[in-house]
Amino acid sequence: MADINAIAKQFTDFYYTTFDTARANLSSLYRDSSMLSFEGSQIQGVAAINEKLTSLPFERVEHKVTTLDAQPSSLGVASLIVSVTGLLLVDDSQNPLQFSQVFQLIPDGGSYYVFNDIFRLNYGA
Amino acid sequence: MADINAIAKQFTDFYYTTFDTARANLSSLYRDSSMLSFEGSQIQGVAAINEKLTSLPFERVEHKVTTLDAQPSSLGVASLIVSVTGLLLVDDSQNPLQFSQVFQLIPDGGSYYVFNDIFRLNYGA
Repeated sequence: MADINAIAKQFTDFYYTTFDTARANLSSLYRDSSMLSFEGSQIQGVAAINEKLTSLPFERVEHKVTTLDAQPSSLGVASLIVSVTGLLLVDDSQNPLQFSQVFQLIPDGGSYYVFNDIFRLNYGA
Repeated sequence: MADINAIAKQFTDFYYTTFDTARANLSSLYRDSSMLSFEGSQIQGVAAINEKLTSLPFERVEHKVTTLDAQPSSLGVASLIVSVTGLLLVDDSQNPLQFSQVFQLIPDGGSYYVFNDIFRLNYGA
């Protein structure tokens, strides 16, 4: 599964760099069928997802990926599930937050779009 | 998405209860096409997955689900992605471990089987 891991790495590098530097540009990754579950809120469609992501209440954010796993998500098409765990630094906080995020990527004209996106912060025990 | 959340809840209740009480019975949930990524190890097929799950080196384990999210994973069939974060207590340890786990469930004769399963422990910052 070397290819799928390379795709997952390329995607997450792009996703988190874009998130951390120019969040509005993430909208190119979503379609009207795309779903985002963000801390339990369910949002559908590129416009609503872009509105949610750009209105998150912080100025600066930095994602650090700790683990990255990928699997083919279909026997029929070259879609994949990407599961990420990592750390998030927000604004001037010195305390990183743990997060988990899952994507399903669907092939689309030589590239991929995000059909599923589930984000959760993980609080300690 | 009430139905999908109910299915996800029913599945995870069954999965973790079975994991914590009779791990070998989890094999009924997998097929030969099923994939498990367990802490970075990639395993495929019901026999290999059962071998992995039953050989994990602890006697007693208890999963507690902290967050549970579900989304439809296909526009065509009634498959779903289930994303779980939670805590794990192993043997006599008093220190719960955080975990993240993602499933894709595929409908199959009135029930579902696990096509994708990605498990990771989350270590602190």
